[in-house]
Amino acid sequence: MFSKTHTKYIQSLHHKKFRDEYGVFIAEGTKVVVELLNADKFECKELFALPDWFVANAKILNNQNEIVKIELKDFELEKISALSTPNNVLGIFQKSTLPQTIQTKQKITLVLDAIQDPGNLGTIIRNADWFGVENIVCSLTCADIYNPKVVQSTMGSLGRVNVVYKDLPNWLAENKSVKKFAAYLDGSNVSTLKGIKEAILIIGNEGKGISEEVMNLVDEKITIKKIGKAESLNAAVASGIILSYLSN
Amino acid sequence: MFSKTHTKYIQSLHHKKFRDEYGVFIAEGTKVVVELLNADKFECKELFALPDWFVANAKILNNQNEIVKIELKDFELEKISALSTPNNVLGIFQKSTLPQTIQTKQKITLVLDAIQDPGNLGTIIRNADWFGVENIVCSLTCADIYNPKVVQSTMGSLGRVNVVYKDLPNWLAENKSVKKFAAYLDGSNVSTLKGIKEAILIIGNEGKGISEEVMNLVDEKITIKKIGKAESLNAAVASGIILSYLSN
Repeated sequence: MFSKTHTKYIQSLHHKKFRDEYGVFIAEGTKVVVELLNADKFECKELFALPDWFVANAKILNNQNEIVKIELKDFELEKISALSTPNNVLGIFQKSTLPQTIQTKQKITLVLDAIQDPGNLGTIIRNADWFGVENIVCSLTCADIYNPKVVQSTMGSLGRVNVVYKDLPNWLAENKSVKKFAAYLDGSNVSTLKGIKEAILIIGNEGKGISEEVMNLVDEKITIKKIGKAESLNAAVASGIILSYLSN
Repeated sequence: MFSKTHTKYIQSLHHKKFRDEYGVFIAEGTKVVVELLNADKFECKELFALPDWFVANAKILNNQNEIVKIELKDFELEKISALSTPNNVLGIFQKSTLPQTIQTKQKITLVLDAIQDPGNLGTIIRNADWFGVENIVCSLTCADIYNPKVVQSTMGSLGRVNVVYKDLPNWLAENKSVKKFAAYLDGSNVSTLKGIKEAILIIGNEGKGISEEVMNLVDEKITIKKIGKAESLNAAVASGIILSYLSN
């Protein structure tokens, strides 16, 4: 039975404070929920869905007896949803106990310096998943990966990409031996990158770019050739373009 | 003096119906408002801002005597804003009378088939502005470029890129002589594109891709090499990556 207590609990999870307190987060929509169920990275605690959804997804839920499954009506889903147009399912998942150490040898690692827009952060995680980047290191000033808008815009990639939060200057100093590239308005043309197997790629804040402290640790600045007049590119687009050249 | 009538009028402009009826749209934040004021493409009718904003931007407003300037308090700005964190200025601009004919010779033209997320559409317009694409042709099923979220995510590029709405199959048939590329999951590697001076690049809907009717008119499918496991890339990211290769 769906209750007022459920509504209050789930609405509280729209806020980081309560996600941290309870150690869980919400994911919405068939695509995202099913990908997270399949990913085996986050334990699903509860599923709230329209009756039809449980019928249509019976196969996937077959071996998931430990999940509490609660049917609700669309107006109830609307109340607990963090989306402007609510979907047909909302899941509560346990946060992952993130690994403390990230291997950077023979890999491309993405580093985000104060990416604050949840949509951008989610889209960057999706980019990483597309280009085979296993690990993302976020500065402590980045948005929370468990923010519902981040989870939504990863389109399920959160289940496949590791994201850790670190003090960036310290972490970069610890990884001295790996070449560090940074997206910057004034650097080498991105098209000079090709078939690079080991690198750390740093993407900066949407408005302010990369902080000075981090910039001091960069080995090479990378620029996406501009032909028109826009002042900058969106951070998620820029990361996608650079990853594409790095891996081609 | 700021009145209840203003509040109602501006709130109505969050909806397409009223933007169409009044022929105007809203833009928020210094960056976007100033870029649109400078662009000379959209006539500014009214500016609603905190008193400090008018002082700080006095120079820009110097020769703009025909604009109605109204000071308001932050709680009043919050009421009329379409943003979750309102800025310090909101402008009402007249929609452009869009040109009917788009020149496609010796140019890269972007074609959008049912891009429905306003943030994606705005980011694609910003990409076009960065890569020097002058014109975007939207299907009639795309989001409205005057939606406040589109305007916001263009970051001012709306003032520099022409966007027209067309029946795509008809329009593409009229432009038979220009080679048509389409972003697709199964096609030539994007890295084979280089220094192309004339092309039509088609980007499809976020979920469904390119419609069959449009797909039938495509000359070459383009794929962004996938290494990981994400099912797809965000449409704005994909458009940015392809434009980057086309223009490099």
